[in-house]
Amino acid sequence: MKKFINSVDHLLDESLGGFALAHADIIQLNIEPRFVRRALPTRPGKVALISGGGSGHEPLHCGFVGFGMLDAACPGQVFTSPTPDQMLAAAQAVAGDAGVLFIVKNYAGDVMNFEIAAEMLDIPHASLLIHDDVSIPEHQGMGRRGIAGTSIVEKIVGAAAEAGADLAACKALGEKVVHASASMGVALGSCTVPALGKPTFDIGPDEMEMGVGIHGERGRERMRLASANEIVDYLANIIDAELKPVRDQPVLLHVNGFGATPLLELYLIYQVAHQFWSRRGVNITRSLVGNYTTSLDMAGCSITLCLLDEDMTHHWDAPAHTAALRQGC
Amino acid sequence: MKKFINSVDHLLDESLGGFALAHADIIQLNIEPRFVRRALPTRPGKVALISGGGSGHEPLHCGFVGFGMLDAACPGQVFTSPTPDQMLAAAQAVAGDAGVLFIVKNYAGDVMNFEIAAEMLDIPHASLLIHDDVSIPEHQGMGRRGIAGTSIVEKIVGAAAEAGADLAACKALGEKVVHASASMGVALGSCTVPALGKPTFDIGPDEMEMGVGIHGERGRERMRLASANEIVDYLANIIDAELKPVRDQPVLLHVNGFGATPLLELYLIYQVAHQFWSRRGVNITRSLVGNYTTSLDMAGCSITLCLLDEDMTHHWDAPAHTAALRQGC
Repeated sequence: MKKFINSVDHLLDESLGGFALAHADIIQLNIEPRFVRRALPTRPGKVALISGGGSGHEPLHCGFVGFGMLDAACPGQVFTSPTPDQMLAAAQAVAGDAGVLFIVKNYAGDVMNFEIAAEMLDIPHASLLIHDDVSIPEHQGMGRRGIAGTSIVEKIVGAAAEAGADLAACKALGEKVVHASASMGVALGSCTVPALGKPTFDIGPDEMEMGVGIHGERGRERMRLASANEIVDYLANIIDAELKPVRDQPVLLHVNGFGATPLLELYLIYQVAHQFWSRRGVNITRSLVGNYTTSLDMAGCSITLCLLDEDMTHHWDAPAHTAALRQGC
Repeated sequence: MKKFINSVDHLLDESLGGFALAHADIIQLNIEPRFVRRALPTRPGKVALISGGGSGHEPLHCGFVGFGMLDAACPGQVFTSPTPDQMLAAAQAVAGDAGVLFIVKNYAGDVMNFEIAAEMLDIPHASLLIHDDVSIPEHQGMGRRGIAGTSIVEKIVGAAAEAGADLAACKALGEKVVHASASMGVALGSCTVPALGKPTFDIGPDEMEMGVGIHGERGRERMRLASANEIVDYLANIIDAELKPVRDQPVLLHVNGFGATPLLELYLIYQVAHQFWSRRGVNITRSLVGNYTTSLDMAGCSITLCLLDEDMTHHWDAPAHTAALRQGC
């Protein structure tokens, strides 16, 4: 296994330590239990937003803690849910009478542990479930996974909370964003989970995996390697069929890298996806291109489309100051 | 070769097209000859800063065009110098009487082509050579290559130009930053140049390459894979011997990913490097961690140390609004 690590056991703490040293102006790290919170005080009466999940998806979620986005994030071990005590301690540290909204990607462990934490909380709370991965049928098993749409939800709801939205309004807005978003990913290679020490699946030099998640799990279909045009066409058609954007619909188009795919290729994918929806008369008014919801060192990317309205656009454009995303401040 | 492309011939134009679509609020793309310039007008009388080089290092340089950094960037084909007509057209488009500073990484083709362009220019001009790679002896062959220190130079000189520094002052400040910076890289894997279709060098599962550049060339030494602590110790000792920071010296510490190394590992490297210099009493006051000067899909990273003074720190902190780096605006 070729990674910059000292030991599998200390990888997460050493990485979080570096994150805290590099961004001491924005975040603080709580060691035991592990959570990252804002370094600067928030406006009194603000709803607290807390997310979390397994590590290995950086900059998600710790990179989104800061003004205009999250109040705290709880990192689990690599691809492993954080524990309820992390979420509880984070909520007790950052939330007040206005309450806390837990932003939870739809994975069994995350859902269960955030639920346990919520039950133990004695302040107002609500949960928002993210399930934007349209590679999975809506009502199969646990349902759809939360993937790259998460960044968009955390940005938009973060801005609303900053602007004074109450707990119910934050949750309702979050659900609107989730409902308006659809994502699907493709992998050219697997990733290597440190504790496993080898790629999570084998894949041939002329194969690709369609509909992958962000934990090195296989996708819904193994296909022969195709051109960028064909790959985008495949993904975008599925996303388009789900959201059915009408002519002149304003949208945000997000091309997300999984960790090992260069920007050179991500921008190429962005152009092809832009052409796909432009041809249909869809109005691409906002964009996000880069590595935001990653899967360790996986080569691949996902495409997310989010149908915008004026309110969502306004919150997308609002100031944010986090390690991974900065806007207007 | 597993990449998101349609054809090797159109890769660059399709990627630049996506970049221009995604960041139309910040930059404009000129198609023939190829250059990227700011979308918004600059202050009259401002010195223009133009950089460029082979593509495959994204976000360098096009991602640094915008308020507070570059006025234009000229992308060559992958790992290939841009041509003099690109630089000349870019200068004619963005530079006025205050003149233009060409920021050139030290590679034979880049140096030659920027020189040819400079000779054809009829406005005041100067060139700044970046040569921060201390893996190479200073006076060997072409001398030291320009690598990840480039981002720091473009940020600091960009802020000075924005604040009204004249051409001579911009060049002098740039030389101060270059002189105060030292970088060295390590690769765990090679990269695949699209036109070549296979990795530029073979490397075993328990080997690493020390002192690599950013064009898939081999480094100065092949070594057995070591722990992150040992790797940082090796690189940091060479950098430290070059710059000899004294106790309490303020520095900027930059850990740069080459493209396929996750943030999880880059932040771990950052912590180890932070400890290395903190133990020596060096005062790490600024940081930059992420993929800024990449080498396509190479797994690896570089460490850059830059000795700061008040003036440099002030310019580092000044507002910047580019696709890849945003600060205070």
